[in-house]
Amino acid sequence: MKILIINGPNINLVGMREPDIYGNVSFELFCDSNLRPLLPSLEAEAEEDIRLDCFQSNCEGDIVTRIQQAAYGPDEERADALIINAGAYTHYSLAIADALRGAGLPAVEVHISNIYAREPERHKSLISPCVCGQIAGLGLDGYRLALRWLVNHESLRK
Amino acid sequence: MKILIINGPNINLVGMREPDIYGNVSFELFCDSNLRPLLPSLEAEAEEDIRLDCFQSNCEGDIVTRIQQAAYGPDEERADALIINAGAYTHYSLAIADALRGAGLPAVEVHISNIYAREPERHKSLISPCVCGQIAGLGLDGYRLALRWLVNHESLRK
Amino acid sequence: MKILIINGPNINLVGMREPDIYGNVSFELFCDSNLRPLLPSLEAEAEEDIRLDCFQSNCEGDIVTRIQQAAYGPDEERADALIINAGAYTHYSLAIADALRGAGLPAVEVHISNIYAREPERHKSLISPCVCGQIAGLGLDGYRLALRWLVNHESLRK
Amino acid sequence: MKILIINGPNINLVGMREPDIYGNVSFELFCDSNLRPLLPSLEAEAEEDIRLDCFQSNCEGDIVTRIQQAAYGPDEERADALIINAGAYTHYSLAIADALRGAGLPAVEVHISNIYAREPERHKSLISPCVCGQIAGLGLDGYRLALRWLVNHESLRK
Amino acid sequence: MKILIINGPNINLVGMREPDIYGNVSFELFCDSNLRPLLPSLEAEAEEDIRLDCFQSNCEGDIVTRIQQAAYGPDEERADALIINAGAYTHYSLAIADALRGAGLPAVEVHISNIYAREPERHKSLISPCVCGQIAGLGLDGYRLALRWLVNHESLRK
Amino acid sequence: MKILIINGPNINLVGMREPDIYGNVSFELFCDSNLRPLLPSLEAEAEEDIRLDCFQSNCEGDIVTRIQQAAYGPDEERADALIINAGAYTHYSLAIADALRGAGLPAVEVHISNIYAREPERHKSLISPCVCGQIAGLGLDGYRLALRWLVNHESLRK
Amino acid sequence: MKILIINGPNINLVGMREPDIYGNVSFELFCDSNLRPLLPSLEAEAEEDIRLDCFQSNCEGDIVTRIQQAAYGPDEERADALIINAGAYTHYSLAIADALRGAGLPAVEVHISNIYAREPERHKSLISPCVCGQIAGLGLDGYRLALRWLVNHESLRK
Amino acid sequence: MKILIINGPNINLVGMREPDIYGNVSFELFCDSNLRPLLPSLEAEAEEDIRLDCFQSNCEGDIVTRIQQAAYGPDEERADALIINAGAYTHYSLAIADALRGAGLPAVEVHISNIYAREPERHKSLISPCVCGQIAGLGLDGYRLALRWLVNHESLRK
Amino acid sequence: MKILIINGPNINLVGMREPDIYGNVSFELFCDSNLRPLLPSLEAEAEEDIRLDCFQSNCEGDIVTRIQQAAYGPDEERADALIINAGAYTHYSLAIADALRGAGLPAVEVHISNIYAREPERHKSLISPCVCGQIAGLGLDGYRLALRWLVNHESLRK
Amino acid sequence: MKILIINGPNINLVGMREPDIYGNVSFELFCDSNLRPLLPSLEAEAEEDIRLDCFQSNCEGDIVTRIQQAAYGPDEERADALIINAGAYTHYSLAIADALRGAGLPAVEVHISNIYAREPERHKSLISPCVCGQIAGLGLDGYRLALRWLVNHESLRK
Amino acid sequence: MKILIINGPNINLVGMREPDIYGNVSFELFCDSNLRPLLPSLEAEAEEDIRLDCFQSNCEGDIVTRIQQAAYGPDEERADALIINAGAYTHYSLAIADALRGAGLPAVEVHISNIYAREPERHKSLISPCVCGQIAGLGLDGYRLALRWLVNHESLRK
Amino acid sequence: MKILIINGPNINLVGMREPDIYGNVSFELFCDSNLRPLLPSLEAEAEEDIRLDCFQSNCEGDIVTRIQQAAYGPDEERADALIINAGAYTHYSLAIADALRGAGLPAVEVHISNIYAREPERHKSLISPCVCGQIAGLGLDGYRLALRWLVNHESLRK
Repeated sequence: MKILIINGPNINLVGMREPDIYGNVSFELFCDSNLRPLLPSLEAEAEEDIRLDCFQSNCEGDIVTRIQQAAYGPDEERADALIINAGAYTHYSLAIADALRGAGLPAVEVHISNIYAREPERHKSLISPCVCGQIAGLGLDGYRLALRWLVNHESLRK
Repeated sequence: MKILIINGPNINLVGMREPDIYGNVSFELFCDSNLRPLLPSLEAEAEEDIRLDCFQSNCEGDIVTRIQQAAYGPDEERADALIINAGAYTHYSLAIADALRGAGLPAVEVHISNIYAREPERHKSLISPCVCGQIAGLGLDGYRLALRWLVNHESLRK
Repeated sequence: MKILIINGPNINLVGMREPDIYGNVSFELFCDSNLRPLLPSLEAEAEEDIRLDCFQSNCEGDIVTRIQQAAYGPDEERADALIINAGAYTHYSLAIADALRGAGLPAVEVHISNIYAREPERHKSLISPCVCGQIAGLGLDGYRLALRWLVNHESLRK
Repeated sequence: MKILIINGPNINLVGMREPDIYGNVSFELFCDSNLRPLLPSLEAEAEEDIRLDCFQSNCEGDIVTRIQQAAYGPDEERADALIINAGAYTHYSLAIADALRGAGLPAVEVHISNIYAREPERHKSLISPCVCGQIAGLGLDGYRLALRWLVNHESLRK
Repeated sequence: MKILIINGPNINLVGMREPDIYGNVSFELFCDSNLRPLLPSLEAEAEEDIRLDCFQSNCEGDIVTRIQQAAYGPDEERADALIINAGAYTHYSLAIADALRGAGLPAVEVHISNIYAREPERHKSLISPCVCGQIAGLGLDGYRLALRWLVNHESLRK
Repeated sequence: MKILIINGPNINLVGMREPDIYGNVSFELFCDSNLRPLLPSLEAEAEEDIRLDCFQSNCEGDIVTRIQQAAYGPDEERADALIINAGAYTHYSLAIADALRGAGLPAVEVHISNIYAREPERHKSLISPCVCGQIAGLGLDGYRLALRWLVNHESLRK
Repeated sequence: MKILIINGPNINLVGMREPDIYGNVSFELFCDSNLRPLLPSLEAEAEEDIRLDCFQSNCEGDIVTRIQQAAYGPDEERADALIINAGAYTHYSLAIADALRGAGLPAVEVHISNIYAREPERHKSLISPCVCGQIAGLGLDGYRLALRWLVNHESLRK
Repeated sequence: MKILIINGPNINLVGMREPDIYGNVSFELFCDSNLRPLLPSLEAEAEEDIRLDCFQSNCEGDIVTRIQQAAYGPDEERADALIINAGAYTHYSLAIADALRGAGLPAVEVHISNIYAREPERHKSLISPCVCGQIAGLGLDGYRLALRWLVNHESLRK
Repeated sequence: MKILIINGPNINLVGMREPDIYGNVSFELFCDSNLRPLLPSLEAEAEEDIRLDCFQSNCEGDIVTRIQQAAYGPDEERADALIINAGAYTHYSLAIADALRGAGLPAVEVHISNIYAREPERHKSLISPCVCGQIAGLGLDGYRLALRWLVNHESLRK
Repeated sequence: MKILIINGPNINLVGMREPDIYGNVSFELFCDSNLRPLLPSLEAEAEEDIRLDCFQSNCEGDIVTRIQQAAYGPDEERADALIINAGAYTHYSLAIADALRGAGLPAVEVHISNIYAREPERHKSLISPCVCGQIAGLGLDGYRLALRWLVNHESLRK
Repeated sequence: MKILIINGPNINLVGMREPDIYGNVSFELFCDSNLRPLLPSLEAEAEEDIRLDCFQSNCEGDIVTRIQQAAYGPDEERADALIINAGAYTHYSLAIADALRGAGLPAVEVHISNIYAREPERHKSLISPCVCGQIAGLGLDGYRLALRWLVNHESLRK
Repeated sequence: MKILIINGPNINLVGMREPDIYGNVSFELFCDSNLRPLLPSLEAEAEEDIRLDCFQSNCEGDIVTRIQQAAYGPDEERADALIINAGAYTHYSLAIADALRGAGLPAVEVHISNIYAREPERHKSLISPCVCGQIAGLGLDGYRLALRWLVNHESLRK
């Protein structure tokens, strides 16, 4: 089973900007912009036969393309499920929402901060209606919980 | 460490009404309206020295009171953290939001269904700005994930 | 066949406050808050093998609970159909709307006054989408007409 | 006593389009567009000295004119009360609303379907503030109940 | 010079409904629905070589057609200028507004009552942007003043 | 195969008012208000066994009636498909929209001008959700393209 | 009988800025900011025993004070009726509206241009609900027509 | 003369949560949730023959019931006037507003904080139109001022 | 200690216009437009070493200037606290709100009538967020209560 | 004559996702993301001396650049007219709209589905005001019709 | 060449209230409310044959008058260009906007603070559409930059 | 000191499209899309030890990346301050706004045209709250003024 983590604009700088709001994680690792250093520990933690892949882009179109590839692309690009934090695009990218709808893969939306406690323009997610569910405000742990849920949820299905 | 799970109106009927959207959980247990039969397994799963308490009410005022007690009430009513699914009150109960703000306890908001994929009147949560974060659309597993996060998060603090 | 009449907040005072807008009905009877004195005549008028029950509460949560009981409660609380005048809750209680949706019983919404000729905040009913139909502005006769319709409608079904 | 039933645009096709939502009524009769075949049975049912007249038009202006005639026209056009289902005009015809206000006759608004459970543009009725009350969602029975109410209500007045 | 007065829905009943708000005019004359009895005195008052014509209809489409004829129709239907009181259509008939725009004739909009002191839905006129100006709230005198202005204004042009 | 072209208010004057925005078409022909002179050339162009009929009215109710007849009327009024340019009614006639929905015929909405580049009140079409598709801003050619599409589309169906 | 004409901000410059939109009036006279040179001819035209007074100010507060004086001030400031063109204040000065309401004098609102054919922020008048009626878009003639109406209207009253 | 003070949700915790915004009052007294310890001093301060009663509830329905009893209940529950701080219910409880309207007792609305300087959802009070007046932002002194006004105001009446 | 009372537009006419809504106060005194005759009794009532000053203006700019002077002007214009009833300016004068914010003096907003029970445009106060609190609907007594509060509140501070 | 077809995000997957809504076109060809396999048949069909070019991108910026090149780029990138289906960008890309406005080329907007019968966020097109016209809901045939119109329209111009 | 600087309400207090947000400028000079002490240095800096004049008022009407004088007044009041900071009036004074439009002088709008980073009611400027451009958030330097631009821009014109 | 100028979509075509609105600048230079030819003169004009860099992109994501590099990238990409004209992205790119917020560099927003005098969708800038200030409508000079301000402002800081 393969799960793809997609991070949108400015997520690549999370550790540099706000180190105080996350616990005992080394952010300089996180900041190579695609969570890769985090992956082995995540894989280990999940205690399953899963593989993780990561993708980060500041470009809306590249995120659309990566989602398409996860569903319809060559085998090495495909994934069984998605974890997506589309950053600011969450709130206006109908294109990413369409891509998720078109891909038809199980997906969980993650937000590091509690977007509902921030400015009003961050309260509405265009992506939410296209995913299974959403985890917001629980920091980097949100990725962990989403991963765990997808693994359990997908196993049950089979 | 003690965690209180608060369920709002109509959550007590979840298993009876929509048995098809949850996996291998026995819903008739859930339906004694306050999750109690679920508690031992949740406690076991958490593998920690935690205790769980549950509360369900269809009455907005009773939920307000229970939150107050968790913060300021007698010892047996107190809790270290909250998991709250306020049901329909999520969307208009400023009183529950005030109670959460007043209590000042770490809390996670849970919604069994993906409220952002439903009718517009369910897209806005008055409660979200008063909690650490939110988990929506991940079914009953949302309670499990919230529990796990609170346990980890609270331990790190001490 | 059993029909439950549910009255919401301030309906218990209808006769005391505005005696001039109803005809030859003795309001002091109505005002014991749950229409019970009215029931025998209603039952007689219906000329059918029906029983009526009444419930009035100023508390949103109690109304939610009573609707749940009508569908899933013990036999003496169950009903085959509902007539509901939720008073002011009509306009903001998503919890009562959810309870009606969850109960799945045939129901008619009644309003004594013409809510569409009053202030704008009374023009929208959250309950309407969850019932078969609505009768508004026809005074206490609205209950009679709703009763008659439910009796006919339900008989035809069987 | 004479009661005029006014039906607006597309009501003349009700039976042809949606035969499944009405019970044991012969719709082909209804479909001569003005309810006339239904009148004898309605008159009989009312068990009163009442006469019924029907009018259907797809034209807003003709409906305005017919309402004016019911109040100020020659004797054979006059009526003591109105039952009106203005169809789609319900939601934007200020002209029909003005005509009803100008006529000053007791009137009941009827909608065959539950307009509050349909698209948002059908939730607001411009006509409601100009009538005694409204019956919506109870099918063709709505006409019967309105008729009964007008007969009783008008008798009480005299 | 010929001026056409167009009255919309329910204007034909003005005198019957609200006789108290106009001074020493005999309204029963007005009520033959097209102001004709008023015309000789208006023509006399204007002290000019003008002819007046009147048209009243409750039907939006007929008003559109009459405006078209005033500009492009046979000679006996043509007019040099318009006075229009579109009644309730003022507030939603984009078709009448289009007809006025298409006709390109000088026109004055008249409202007997002060529409800006009434319900909000009467505050917006779709017709105003298509006419030279508007007179509202000055009773039947509004027609007189509009007539006088058109006569003066048109003379100056030539 | 028979196709009915329905034109709404003020379309009958298109050629008279704005001759400059159409190319080498003789508009005086168009202006007998129902496109009839255009029909032979349209039929010829389509190179198929199709017949065309035209209908123009300034009256909303007459358009509703004509649509009803196309679906349920006598044979000589029936049609297999519709092309509709409802003019100003496009933006507020829920009655025409209902008639289209009720008729259930394949239909294409045409607008001669680009309504989306004009005033805001012309940006919303109530009719669009009830048709297969829309062609706007392509002048009288819009009718030609709609015709061609309906012919192809309908042939494929059979 | 004495009538006071009140002009608001920028009305004093009307003649200087847009000489082309008025006919045979000498605007340099008008531009001494309070219409005084116009008064004798207006008084003569009215052919009545009336006196006119004018007041122009760019200051909202001064206009409020002048209206108060017209109703409650010393005799030389009092007036029997008002003609008011509040310029831009028309659209936001609740204070002037309150002053008019408090004064209780018959008043006519005048606008030289057709405010309803201009920008949206000029479509709403706060003053309209506080006056008898409004004349808009008829140029400087609007003052003449308002004067004539007030003279007739007031005479009839006595 | 008897005055009833009604406090809504979370008011019972005022002293515990924000001790710094009130002066020399002992909040632990206030916090028995119904002001009772404060009553003797308030009664003494008023220097009148008045009695005070207090009621606090987190439940909307109980507040509705208590207001009803103040007007129509048994003698020991009745009151001559009300002071009400409905807490968060202020902003959405149409039911409490209806109860106040139905009770018809003189009432003053009190808010400890300046609700108009807080979040937008606290700027609108549904209760304000049903009371004599409102005091907001003056802390616990608001109750004192309201009491003083009611005593004076009511005495003057008699 | 010196307190300045500022009254806005049309407050100077309060007694003349609506004498019936105030009790045993001599309004002709109040109407010299700045409350001065009321001051001795207010000073006496306060039983403190306070001085009062009054200012009324219909001009927004003058009110801004007077507030500035109270904070930064010469000694005889300075004040320790403000009571302000900005009349209609309450609802749109951001300039007065800015002046209050800039002055930084403790202030209480007073409204003689219950602005929340009047027209919607009077429900929003721009001034409220810039003052300590607000008293509305308690008539002229509102000034007394505000005075009392400021005296107590300020004394406590020192 | 050269015409450029621009397709926006997710259009490259049309055939894979929804094969049932298009007729006898081989979608696997379409899915090389830029319609190229379709071009020869389109060119043949047009029976003219035209050349077609195609461009598809998921990236908003690339689409902007391609439009710029069509107007100002090197000869091999230039085009005489555009057909554009901007996919989801239709509804929020002011940048693409600006590019179209800046390019000044004749263009037709195409949507495969009827966007006006879908979710509200797809009802508004920012692109429509910048093109000649729009074809929506007619499937892949929309491209054909647009092509035909551009060819005819452009020939007429020369 | 003469340039007039106009400052609106509360700008006269800028230095007193917020000394910390400006650098090495002596604010007590600025605070004589019309920038005069600043003028010599500004004139020197511009190194041109320009003269500066300043005007500050808290009164909307006086600002309107001063703008009128700059365009149409006596020579000593005239100016070739304007720099305007209308303070709070920026956001609601249609009268000042009209005066600017009427004056027809080149003007630059200046705001000391970044109004777009403040409360929503400060985000909209009614004045912006009537000036050449706007400088916001650059402190007192905004005046300098505006001055420089006007000098350059105007010279180029001649 | 190094300052980076960032230009968004379609800015690269400014000179080609609208040569008439800029003075004596050679636009063909400007049009190599990144202002480079302008840089030496700008550097010379500033008379300081500053270096300029330019970046233009039609792609939202590339602009986000370039802003990130200016703050956190390798030395040759870093800058001390930013001048940004985000073109159409100004009005909807929350991603660029986030990047600016995250970079924390002093920045000035520039718009060549007066965006507040254009269509409503250009009135709101998402970027404004994230920069020091804004210059709009002053043409290419806006870049010069912004540059000058940043140089002065930054020097003062050190």
